[in-house]
Amino acid sequence: MSKNWNTFEVLRHSRHDWLNRLQLIKGNLALDHIDRAKEIIEEIIIQSRQEAKLSNLNAPKLTEYILTFNWCNHLFQLDFEVIGDEYDISNYEAELIELVARCTEAIEAQVSYPADHHLLLTLQLYHEEIHLVFDFQGEYSNSHKLKTEFENVEINSAHLTRFEHSEDEVVSTFLIK
Amino acid sequence: MSKNWNTFEVLRHSRHDWLNRLQLIKGNLALDHIDRAKEIIEEIIIQSRQEAKLSNLNAPKLTEYILTFNWCNHLFQLDFEVIGDEYDISNYEAELIELVARCTEAIEAQVSYPADHHLLLTLQLYHEEIHLVFDFQGEYSNSHKLKTEFENVEINSAHLTRFEHSEDEVVSTFLIK
Repeated sequence: MSKNWNTFEVLRHSRHDWLNRLQLIKGNLALDHIDRAKEIIEEIIIQSRQEAKLSNLNAPKLTEYILTFNWCNHLFQLDFEVIGDEYDISNYEAELIELVARCTEAIEAQVSYPADHHLLLTLQLYHEEIHLVFDFQGEYSNSHKLKTEFENVEINSAHLTRFEHSEDEVVSTFLIK
Repeated sequence: MSKNWNTFEVLRHSRHDWLNRLQLIKGNLALDHIDRAKEIIEEIIIQSRQEAKLSNLNAPKLTEYILTFNWCNHLFQLDFEVIGDEYDISNYEAELIELVARCTEAIEAQVSYPADHHLLLTLQLYHEEIHLVFDFQGEYSNSHKLKTEFENVEINSAHLTRFEHSEDEVVSTFLIK
């Protein structure tokens, strides 16, 4: 399900990601778009804070799964955010990984080619109730099939509480408790 | 000798390093030192090319050892460069790791406190002869002891070919063949 990365590979992928960000800053500075370069730096810092927040939930395998997702070839780009309190979610870690894996696979099965598709994964942590929101934006083929898959994930503590879709977006929320 | 990093830790350290670099760029942009910011970006790109070059020598464990060295607490900062041809040095990988480990330990034993100490490690690759240069700059206590240690590393294919020292610098070169 999840690739085992070695240090050498992690360093290589990470360097590649960061150099891409650096090129964006460099490109804007070269065009004298100083304000845009500053904005990009702020965006990177905000995203890094999200990574740090995710890393503070005592769920290192889940963190690794999410942060390395885009290094494998997928038909969409995964973005994520963590909203709410920071607390220890280690009790739910295995099930959260399973849920993310199943749902991303189900979504990918409904996407026919790589394009500017995005999946925003939001981890909402309130009062020891975890909500996991999958917000997919892009072209997909069958929302009915997707809903059925989501309703039948058969992960003990996870329940689909919301499923909404439009022509180019599917938003589904799971409650994990 | 070498710590086994997991993906979670590598991501955390790597993020920390890159955010430090980003802060340097951000700070200079805030002071309107645009040219300095551009220079820093160029320096980072050059260093990243060195990392990529090191990564291309088919010696992933050596690469990992060097690139993660500064994540452990040491009394000096390790910098490195790779000069010359890029070829497969896997036959010498284990001995090179051993040599770097032994020599950095020997140097560290002669440094009494952390300060602005630097060790530049240069890997020179010419005609299938590897030269490894340890250029330490900083305060150290006993060059004689260091020389004796270097002369007696007892690694089969490594021979000390040069040892020079001044008050605040020690340069030693090993030939590995």
